Amino acid sequence: MSNSENSQKPHDRMASFLKDDMEAVNVLIRDRMASKHAPRIPEVTAHLVDAGGKRLRPMLTLATAHLCGYDGPYHIHLAATVEFIHTATLLHDDVVDESGQRRGRPTANLLWDNKSSVLVGDYLFSRSFQLMVETGSLRVLDILSNASATIAEGEVLQLTASQDLRTTEEIYLQVVRGKTAALFSAATEVGGVIAGASDAHVAALFEYGDALGVAFQIVDDLLDFQGDEKATGKNVGDDFRERKLTMPLIKAVAKADAEEHAFWQRTIEKGKQQDGDLEHAISLLHKHGALEDTKTAARSEAARAKAALSTLPEHPVKDMLTDLADYVVERITLRAARRVPFDCQFLLRQPTNQDDSIAACRPPPSQRRRLGTAQSTSPPTPTFVPACSFRPTEAPLEPWRWTAQERLRHSACHCAVPPATAQSR
Amino acid sequence: MSNSENSQKPHDRMASFLKDDMEAVNVLIRDRMASKHAPRIPEVTAHLVDAGGKRLRPMLTLATAHLCGYDGPYHIHLAATVEFIHTATLLHDDVVDESGQRRGRPTANLLWDNKSSVLVGDYLFSRSFQLMVETGSLRVLDILSNASATIAEGEVLQLTASQDLRTTEEIYLQVVRGKTAALFSAATEVGGVIAGASDAHVAALFEYGDALGVAFQIVDDLLDFQGDEKATGKNVGDDFRERKLTMPLIKAVAKADAEEHAFWQRTIEKGKQQDGDLEHAISLLHKHGALEDTKTAARSEAARAKAALSTLPEHPVKDMLTDLADYVVERITLRAARRVPFDCQFLLRQPTNQDDSIAACRPPPSQRRRLGTAQSTSPPTPTFVPACSFRPTEAPLEPWRWTAQERLRHSACHCAVPPATAQSR
Repeated sequence: MSNSENSQKPHDRMASFLKDDMEAVNVLIRDRMASKHAPRIPEVTAHLVDAGGKRLRPMLTLATAHLCGYDGPYHIHLAATVEFIHTATLLHDDVVDESGQRRGRPTANLLWDNKSSVLVGDYLFSRSFQLMVETGSLRVLDILSNASATIAEGEVLQLTASQDLRTTEEIYLQVVRGKTAALFSAATEVGGVIAGASDAHVAALFEYGDALGVAFQIVDDLLDFQGDEKATGKNVGDDFRERKLTMPLIKAVAKADAEEHAFWQRTIEKGKQQDGDLEHAISLLHKHGALEDTKTAARSEAARAKAALSTLPEHPVKDMLTDLADYVVERITLRAARRVPFDCQFLLRQPTNQDDSIAACRPPPSQRRRLGTAQSTSPPTPTFVPACSFRPTEAPLEPWRWTAQERLRHSACHCAVPPATAQSR
Repeated sequence: MSNSENSQKPHDRMASFLKDDMEAVNVLIRDRMASKHAPRIPEVTAHLVDAGGKRLRPMLTLATAHLCGYDGPYHIHLAATVEFIHTATLLHDDVVDESGQRRGRPTANLLWDNKSSVLVGDYLFSRSFQLMVETGSLRVLDILSNASATIAEGEVLQLTASQDLRTTEEIYLQVVRGKTAALFSAATEVGGVIAGASDAHVAALFEYGDALGVAFQIVDDLLDFQGDEKATGKNVGDDFRERKLTMPLIKAVAKADAEEHAFWQRTIEKGKQQDGDLEHAISLLHKHGALEDTKTAARSEAARAKAALSTLPEHPVKDMLTDLADYVVERITLRAARRVPFDCQFLLRQPTNQDDSIAACRPPPSQRRRLGTAQSTSPPTPTFVPACSFRPTEAPLEPWRWTAQERLRHSACHCAVPPATAQSR
């Protein structure tokens, strides 16, 4: 392997190695997200699928299938299946979390509505299910159906574990296994299964995916407190505002004195938050070394992932998977270098009354200066959503009258896609 | 068959005939709706599963498997699968429709929250998928995965077809095929497939299920305008208020003069509804014979269902299926005889701000006289939900502090189950 290859990020090296496969996966995804009768489905799906996710999960399936010597066609179906399950989960998550932003763009529930997010998510779940049935492998179906149940169970567990200061690291890890690691481990396991790998190799691939997924989610929860929101596409402090007990908080609560405990009770259990609370919470995390301890926990999971790979055959992909385990932990500093543009020049009225979600969508203060309208010196009111300067040339000026095609063209700019009206054109 | 058997309703006769099977299905449902980690899941599911639905869809699978001579164990799994898909769909529907009442009881999204309904629905979808994988039949998996996709697509299509006066009967029937008939036809088809029936018999069973499902939904939409809400557990006029273009409305709009068209534009397209509009809408349906024409359409679907059965072997179940096709159309008058009690004696504060849903939950004027509190002479304000007189003997007086078990005991009274707090006990 050349030096220039090694200097690339591991998932970029993997994307290069799997380029042809990933193109086939993208073609299959576009084909199956279509709907003859309901144009709303590809509109909503394209918004997420085009948003520039790294396609990490489908790449894991393709990579592990190659690692185990697969030369059939069905790893493409399985990779698309995994991406569909992931996309469906994101759509439902955004409804549950009342999120306003995902991957640096407004969420589908904000741009369309909760109804579309729920139902299009259901459609993608069903489509993922059709895709995996096409592989004809009952073992694959068994793994993916179990993973789906674990994901949903983890999400419900998170609902009840949130806002409860008694939540332990054990419960937290159960939630993480459900919401993230179950799909990672299913993605790596089915790659081995479709290739006809030995039981020992399949078990090793499961272990790798599980550890990688747990590490990935721990780091995600860490980024919520110390990430660059323009790099991560997430708002810093979202978990704190949503009163989610993630690992950094659990570690800080465990070491809290009486006064600090009262602070956590007020802000997390009672949800009575005020200006300055997030900053104080972060200072408590630093005081107790909770962020550093959390990073150590993530590193230990990454080590478990790498150890699991040791029994597997040598293969260029194996090095990439090893490096990926390190990368998901180290991305905290690496990701800050990548910025998503947010050059909004006019404000677009959002015909919904989900004020909280919309408020979350406002550009940060440093971005507000870029706004080119009368509103530019004051923050937008919560009933407005920023959008970019794209205007369709031959379409009506009011963006909410744009056709589906105009919205899709606009979505390529990585800024706000204008909302559809209740009635799709 | 004795005369007394023939005088019973067909689905009651079917329930008697399939008693042992249905008990096995119920045991399997209770077993699989459990969750080791997330007690919220069986709480929410039990609320729906215990609400006394007729279990029509799982009975169709059991009946068609018997009709085709099946003597294996997997029709039980398939029947439970079909009921889980149905329950998951109901949970998501209630979020999408912002419904306040289902089967005469407050909906899960009202009692818990939208989050729980979305995620528990996802859990049940996954569980249904695990159940069908256990049958080991790829053909069954193919049918049920296609049905799931058709259901979700139909629901999305309904989102965009609603509120659009240009919606034709053809589009309406596409929506109906998705939201209702797809699961009916999958339920009857997999019964034949698991029994190893011939392709011609399987095709006939599909046709029967499809026609029965279409008839069932057309009648449901008719009941929305002329049903007894205490008998149907639905609020009369819900579809009109939600601006859903169902068959009776489509027929009346097609015959509307200019003044009537303006009325439909105001109430359905623009959603500007006022007191008396529902009554005027119903009078227009009567004027154009839209209700009678809709019933004729339902009868024609019932005839198609019965014709499809003609090629199938003679069997006691075949007569019940034939009678069932007539019954789903004639239940309009039959159902008015059955009443769900609604004896509310105190008002229970509902800690949510879903005012519209809660308003839909208010008892009808005739019931308000029964309220035993100071509010009894005036309608309850939208932030209150009526509940029955059940009080747990050894539990805290505030119903929202009840344990899951207390809520479940209370739910047996067919009245309002008190809402869970954000944090489940």
